[in-house]
Amino acid sequence: MGAALALAERGRGRTAPNPNVGCVIVDDAGRVVGRCWTQPGGRPHAEAMALAEAGERARGATAYVTLEPCAHVSTRGPACSDSLIAAGVTRVVAGIEDPDPRTAGSGFARLREAGVAVTAGVRAEDARRSMAGFLTRLALGRPFVTLKLATSLDGCIAMADGTSRWITGAESRAHAHLERSRHEAILVGRGTYEADAPRLDVRLPGLEERSPERVILSTRPHPSGAARLPPSPAGRGKMLLKAAKGEGGWLSIPSPQAIIDLPADHLLVEGGAQTAAAFLRADLVDRLLLYRAPILIGGGKPGIADVGLSDLSAAHGRWRLADARRLGVDRLEVYERASCLPASSPTSAPSAASNSAATRES
Amino acid sequence: MGAALALAERGRGRTAPNPNVGCVIVDDAGRVVGRCWTQPGGRPHAEAMALAEAGERARGATAYVTLEPCAHVSTRGPACSDSLIAAGVTRVVAGIEDPDPRTAGSGFARLREAGVAVTAGVRAEDARRSMAGFLTRLALGRPFVTLKLATSLDGCIAMADGTSRWITGAESRAHAHLERSRHEAILVGRGTYEADAPRLDVRLPGLEERSPERVILSTRPHPSGAARLPPSPAGRGKMLLKAAKGEGGWLSIPSPQAIIDLPADHLLVEGGAQTAAAFLRADLVDRLLLYRAPILIGGGKPGIADVGLSDLSAAHGRWRLADARRLGVDRLEVYERASCLPASSPTSAPSAASNSAATRES
Ligand SMILES: NC(=O)c1ccc[n+]([C@@H]2O[C@H](COP(=O)([O-])OP(=O)(O)OC[C@H]3O[C@@H](n4cnc5c(N)ncnc54)[C@H](OP(=O)(O)O)[C@@H]3O)[C@@H](O)[C@H]2O)c1
Ligand SMILES: NC(=O)c1ccc[n+]([C@@H]2O[C@H](COP(=O)([O-])OP(=O)(O)OC[C@H]3O[C@@H](n4cnc5c(N)ncnc54)[C@H](OP(=O)(O)O)[C@@H]3O)[C@@H](O)[C@H]2O)c1
Repeated sequence: MGAALALAERGRGRTAPNPNVGCVIVDDAGRVVGRCWTQPGGRPHAEAMALAEAGERARGATAYVTLEPCAHVSTRGPACSDSLIAAGVTRVVAGIEDPDPRTAGSGFARLREAGVAVTAGVRAEDARRSMAGFLTRLALGRPFVTLKLATSLDGCIAMADGTSRWITGAESRAHAHLERSRHEAILVGRGTYEADAPRLDVRLPGLEERSPERVILSTRPHPSGAARLPPSPAGRGKMLLKAAKGEGGWLSIPSPQAIIDLPADHLLVEGGAQTAAAFLRADLVDRLLLYRAPILIGGGKPGIADVGLSDLSAAHGRWRLADARRLGVDRLEVYERASCLPASSPTSAPSAASNSAATRES
Repeated sequence: MGAALALAERGRGRTAPNPNVGCVIVDDAGRVVGRCWTQPGGRPHAEAMALAEAGERARGATAYVTLEPCAHVSTRGPACSDSLIAAGVTRVVAGIEDPDPRTAGSGFARLREAGVAVTAGVRAEDARRSMAGFLTRLALGRPFVTLKLATSLDGCIAMADGTSRWITGAESRAHAHLERSRHEAILVGRGTYEADAPRLDVRLPGLEERSPERVILSTRPHPSGAARLPPSPAGRGKMLLKAAKGEGGWLSIPSPQAIIDLPADHLLVEGGAQTAAAFLRADLVDRLLLYRAPILIGGGKPGIADVGLSDLSAAHGRWRLADARRLGVDRLEVYERASCLPASSPTSAPSAASNSAATRES
């Protein structure tokens, strides 16, 4: 399952509107005979690819898959649960049940009816984390939002005069580019867009093609170089997006809530301070990526503007450490919501969710 | 040596002007026959206490000691190197050489002349860290300075309205009190003194007696409740201090540089932002204690005011992570100078060092 989860990461940020699934098939001698992940655009599914690789060797084998195999036939392919049965797989070990109403347990049921042994819920939390984009879209109708901050030990994102090159080191910046490659969209506030003219692309060898769509947060209808994202959940699809973008290749949205219209399951917010505060105030941040350099700036620019906190106790219990590691001399900390999803979403969840399920085309 | 280093910690902040040494004596069957640390006030020395515990069992034993045994006789006791020889110890394993000019290698030499096997430099870096107060006083004529900050993830020490109770949790606060107990003196700026009227004592069961002397940083000659510390390195001694304190039991100093006059080898600076910046600007911070709660404040009070940083590159290479751990849901990070001691000290090092050596009474 660990291997399947690692494979699933390869698809993160590229499979929308489908989930990024990983699959490993192991024969009864313990040999790996097939391994794959959901392909860009959401098809073929991970199971279909892994079964194709395994061929006849799938007979009697065990399939490890991060999500319940689907139970619905699509124009783009058969149901994975049927394919697994047809290939002669005798055991399926799965991460989580697929919340998509077209599957939602019926994939497991179909496998069991055919005599396949099913073990579900294996490394469920990791599977949920791995597919957070898909799950958030399905439950709340909006992308999963990561807020990134690169700061000094005293929490500054720049010197008082605005200088911010460089606070963090090369290892941190490479890691931040890898994170970018796993997001369909990246957003900055108009202040940062105009001050820094950031490229926001992925500058890692071999991953240059995976730069996310660039989005500006601005109340202005037409920030220069950008065009307003059309407000339509049905508009989620690369083709439509390309037409919508402004001359500079940027989109713009008028409020944090408008992320509901983004054709993305993963949104990376890269500042500045007002923008970070706007997303936090709207309770639209699911994950924090904190890159911290071992320096003190003193009297520099804080990373987050006023979020309207009423009292300190209201700030507690909100974040849970998910990962901490060194990156060169810097440190990275990843925090997640202490509860899996926000209690209530400012974007109207139920209707959005049904929209979303309707537009998922897998 | 690990055990000796742990014992040495018990004396930290209580042995000035002597070093806080730890000693463990092990007989030839591997049994611990004596263990102790330098007692409050600096005498008896760790070796003397451990030898007393071991008695006849020291014959043929090995002594593990964090610092070179002293070679100078004092009115308060014989030289430890002589005592070890007289007790029949046949091997000494030591951390670092004693930089005190009265010993400085002659302790080891005397042991070797008497046929004792000496291994020096064992866990030297840990030994140096453990005796940083003593070593800083000897080299630079001033206390070792730790700056403590308790912040949110975004580096705030309070909400915009000044509320700071509580950012960090009970475990962090208990740890901070333990740190207080290992310092002879604790300092805040006049702003914090007047705003918070902090007690700055040690509120841990069994350690209440170990509250440090309280000091205010202020340019005013007479902050209410405090009296100016007399500027005299010879004044280092508890008796003189008690007379100097103001009605409120506080001392005050007019500048960060005036810490040279404090009868302390360890000074804990607890803020606020201006005071932290003043010590950093003067390059008088040796260690950072960062307690961070998993909360975001947004638009709160930053922990460090302007330190006069000229450019970002000047901030790099200055701090090295020495420890990182969880304290409940909070995290503690300890940073030290990347170089052992500042290249040049604003307090005139050579004369201070000779003063210091002269007043060390061990
Ligand atoms: N070191 C780093 O990691 C880093 C990262 C990013 C930025 N920075 C620095 O941060 C500075 C810019 O930060 P900033 O806080 O001034 O600006 P910002 O957050 O980048 O942009 C502020 C703008 O965002 C729009 N905005 C904010 N809240 C909104 C809301 N609720 N709804 C709609 N639009 C909203 C507004 O645009 P309109 O006025 O057009 O409505 C506002 O003027 C720059 O100096 C940049 O270099 C540093
Ligand atoms: N959460 C926490 O951990 C924490 C900790 C500490 C403080 N705080 C908060 O921080 C706030 C106070 O911070 P602050 O920055 O305003 O004040 P501060 O640093 O506590 O005190 C400022 C005063 O220190 C003196 N001072 C500063 N630099 C000096 C220098 N180089 N030489 C001599 N004296 C110097 C000056 O006193 P004179 O004007 O008398 O010369 C100055 O007015 C309070 O609201 C407090 O609650 C929070």
